[in-house]
Amino acid sequence: MTILEICDYLGNFFDALELTGGGACEIVAPARIETARSGEVTFVANDKYVKFLASTEASLVIVHHSVNVDEFIHKIFFIKVNDPYSAFVFLLQKFAMPRTIAAKGVASTASIGDGVSIGEGVSIGEYAVVGNQCSIGNNCVIGAHTVLMHNVVLGDDTSLFPSVTCYDGTIIGKRVVIHSGSVIGADGFGFAPQKNGSYVKIPQMGIVEIGDDVEIGANSTIDRATMGSTIIGTGVKIDNLVQIAHNCRIGDHTVIASQAGISGSVTIGRHCVIAGQAGLAGHLELADRIQVAAQAGVSKSFLHPGTALRGYPAQPMRDQLKHEAMLRSLGTMKEKLDRLESELKAIKGE
Amino acid sequence: MTILEICDYLGNFFDALELTGGGACEIVAPARIETARSGEVTFVANDKYVKFLASTEASLVIVHHSVNVDEFIHKIFFIKVNDPYSAFVFLLQKFAMPRTIAAKGVASTASIGDGVSIGEGVSIGEYAVVGNQCSIGNNCVIGAHTVLMHNVVLGDDTSLFPSVTCYDGTIIGKRVVIHSGSVIGADGFGFAPQKNGSYVKIPQMGIVEIGDDVEIGANSTIDRATMGSTIIGTGVKIDNLVQIAHNCRIGDHTVIASQAGISGSVTIGRHCVIAGQAGLAGHLELADRIQVAAQAGVSKSFLHPGTALRGYPAQPMRDQLKHEAMLRSLGTMKEKLDRLESELKAIKGE
Amino acid sequence: MTILEICDYLGNFFDALELTGGGACEIVAPARIETARSGEVTFVANDKYVKFLASTEASLVIVHHSVNVDEFIHKIFFIKVNDPYSAFVFLLQKFAMPRTIAAKGVASTASIGDGVSIGEGVSIGEYAVVGNQCSIGNNCVIGAHTVLMHNVVLGDDTSLFPSVTCYDGTIIGKRVVIHSGSVIGADGFGFAPQKNGSYVKIPQMGIVEIGDDVEIGANSTIDRATMGSTIIGTGVKIDNLVQIAHNCRIGDHTVIASQAGISGSVTIGRHCVIAGQAGLAGHLELADRIQVAAQAGVSKSFLHPGTALRGYPAQPMRDQLKHEAMLRSLGTMKEKLDRLESELKAIKGE
Repeated sequence: MTILEICDYLGNFFDALELTGGGACEIVAPARIETARSGEVTFVANDKYVKFLASTEASLVIVHHSVNVDEFIHKIFFIKVNDPYSAFVFLLQKFAMPRTIAAKGVASTASIGDGVSIGEGVSIGEYAVVGNQCSIGNNCVIGAHTVLMHNVVLGDDTSLFPSVTCYDGTIIGKRVVIHSGSVIGADGFGFAPQKNGSYVKIPQMGIVEIGDDVEIGANSTIDRATMGSTIIGTGVKIDNLVQIAHNCRIGDHTVIASQAGISGSVTIGRHCVIAGQAGLAGHLELADRIQVAAQAGVSKSFLHPGTALRGYPAQPMRDQLKHEAMLRSLGTMKEKLDRLESELKAIKGE
Repeated sequence: MTILEICDYLGNFFDALELTGGGACEIVAPARIETARSGEVTFVANDKYVKFLASTEASLVIVHHSVNVDEFIHKIFFIKVNDPYSAFVFLLQKFAMPRTIAAKGVASTASIGDGVSIGEGVSIGEYAVVGNQCSIGNNCVIGAHTVLMHNVVLGDDTSLFPSVTCYDGTIIGKRVVIHSGSVIGADGFGFAPQKNGSYVKIPQMGIVEIGDDVEIGANSTIDRATMGSTIIGTGVKIDNLVQIAHNCRIGDHTVIASQAGISGSVTIGRHCVIAGQAGLAGHLELADRIQVAAQAGVSKSFLHPGTALRGYPAQPMRDQLKHEAMLRSLGTMKEKLDRLESELKAIKGE
Repeated sequence: MTILEICDYLGNFFDALELTGGGACEIVAPARIETARSGEVTFVANDKYVKFLASTEASLVIVHHSVNVDEFIHKIFFIKVNDPYSAFVFLLQKFAMPRTIAAKGVASTASIGDGVSIGEGVSIGEYAVVGNQCSIGNNCVIGAHTVLMHNVVLGDDTSLFPSVTCYDGTIIGKRVVIHSGSVIGADGFGFAPQKNGSYVKIPQMGIVEIGDDVEIGANSTIDRATMGSTIIGTGVKIDNLVQIAHNCRIGDHTVIASQAGISGSVTIGRHCVIAGQAGLAGHLELADRIQVAAQAGVSKSFLHPGTALRGYPAQPMRDQLKHEAMLRSLGTMKEKLDRLESELKAIKGE
């Protein structure tokens, strides 16, 4: 792809694009600035990386309009843009080789149930199992060994990597990506304690509904509702090994990092960020744009949008950081206390 | 099902059942009180929900004997019972559609090893793999893609959802349910450090034994013992993404919530509750009925039955809550300390 | 195996071996000292277990040279060695039955892609899927239902248990063991936030490279790099349900226990130990031989080799233990503070 072609492509996303020359130069791959070689494109989105302009061998660097590149234009071509990071991400998408999760068409070893509807352009891999009455949208890709139990619905352009399991009734939107090993729609963890100390299973009769443009990592689990639906909103991004329990509602464009756990019947707002290994207790609610720090333990609802939470039990960042500073000053407090005690003794001894 | 039929059915579980009328009325589904519609049954087990009696459209509500329903009997039929929550759970079981994990019989694509014994009424799904010398009890259901390595034993009426893996030698009781992605009997994490800083694998020669009426969630892992057995007692309930390491013994009717981790050689008593993301260090013991709070880190044995534990390192709830209250009073302590310092200065200055 | 044969075998690993007699005695199995019976071998590696010599029924016990066994030689044979624990581990390896992950040869139901190279002595189980251009080393074992996407490389003598998934391009060394349900090479969790609050996926174009002699437990996830490689060094041991995010580099012979989570772009040195449920924030670095305690939350780099870390945010063990002791003394501080206040009041009242 020539630099001019790159400019054309980025022009789809950005208004004010500035090129310092070299339009005919051929660019073969994206790379990190520290390791980029001749013929490769990289970017600077952070002032800390400007220093690498002196040493990089990249042929093309995407930078912000504000970066002064005069001293390097003898050896590097530049595209200036107002968001070089996103520009590079769009370029990565252009350079990324289309990945083959499963070959076009339905593999001869795939097992397709009764009454299944399959859209156009669908790929279904080896040994995949599609249960009765499933509905597979156009251009869906189902990896080898993935199992859809009965009555599962996949929207158009959705991709399931190998060895995903969707329990019966799961409804998945368009352009969703689910990575290997994730289990969607298993029974919620509900048991009624009996007088003799044993438990009776509460039937989990609901389903999981996943919105459009969701991505779910590897080996995560999203449980079906007891009644009704566990709901994953549009654009939600879920990392690996995440637990989402029954009856949860995750708001649109919320991000949940690896190993976080959301207990049953939790409602999370839109545009929230739940960091790694954080845990949310059951039946609580978080407002929009709330940020939960890594390993935090949220034990109650927080209804003020945009609050940043941290610690166990989690409290607003400012309170928690003040509390942590106080904890660090404990030694000083102890010393002062001992000093006052001595002084007081001295006074009393007088 | 008519209300009279519901009364008959609940009569199997409860002695004193009181009906306010409407026996012939047809009930079509269970629902939550907030969303129930005409023809549906719901319940009130908590005083906070009594207020919904005024607005609910449910035709039948199950309540405790003590609830005064006089003002609603013009629009709702009631069944009074001494445990409305459990009564509703039993009703859910009645209304739940039987779920088809795998069609009756052995799928033509299933791979059955040598010397396998298969009971009556068994269902084995597509591409399931049953190793040599396995023994499958009556009415067992084995989901698509589930793999039993050699010498695995399943008791009667046990159900494995798709894509479960049981390593060789695993022994599973009756009426056990295991959800997709769980791995039973993988090698314990045992390596002997060598002088050069590398590790030699300690062969994991034991097995996993799972009692009757156990349920295990999705993507959990239970490791085989180094020698002997890792033991999961009768009636134990294990949630998703739980880790149980080698040589553990989990007592009967103990409940372990999602993402909890039990280190090697831990012994947990009967009727314990381990909450989500809690961790137990290796080689410790918990008495019966101990409750471990979410995210707690248990670093030593607790041998007094019924203790509630919380915090890191975990200590009895009362001590820990006192400690947390003390932490919250740190600001006040600091202020008092500064005031005393000023007063002392003033006295000395006299 | 006779005791003399055991001596011969252990002579391969240890110089100074001392036998107290009984060379012709036949030993049939290894066992723990508490439960060992006649004909079995056990060991004492810890002074706490010496007391069991009086009661054990074992025929052979492996002990350290320093243990005085005179009073037991009438009923037990002993082998003395300078590392009885490792000696017993080597014996376990000798007694361990060779485990059959998959029968020799390529199962007729396995799906082998185009251009695949398969070494000698390879076993590929039922329904395994091997993608195009994969390269399988000599004596590799691939369990039933394991999926290798395209261009995966396995070194000689590597074993994948059933239902492992390796994404395209994954490179795995020699003598590696990966347990069921683990997913190697899924997309890193990278999304660029857009002005409207949605996210654009950052293509994950890199791979995962795993060194020789690595073992990975069940249901763990190791993500591919955004560009370049996520690297797992030689001899690394990873437990169950561990998360290793994109672009991480794990140094040789480092051990990572269950449910630990390593965020993106973290570099861990050689011979480190990361205990269970610990979490490391993104982009940080740990020096060689660092030990991270269970549930610790590491929020910054630690570059001093051999540091032991604990707590949240994690700090060196000595500081953290001092801090925890200070916390425990809070009650005493509060009492002293109240006493000083009274005394001061008394003085002022004079």
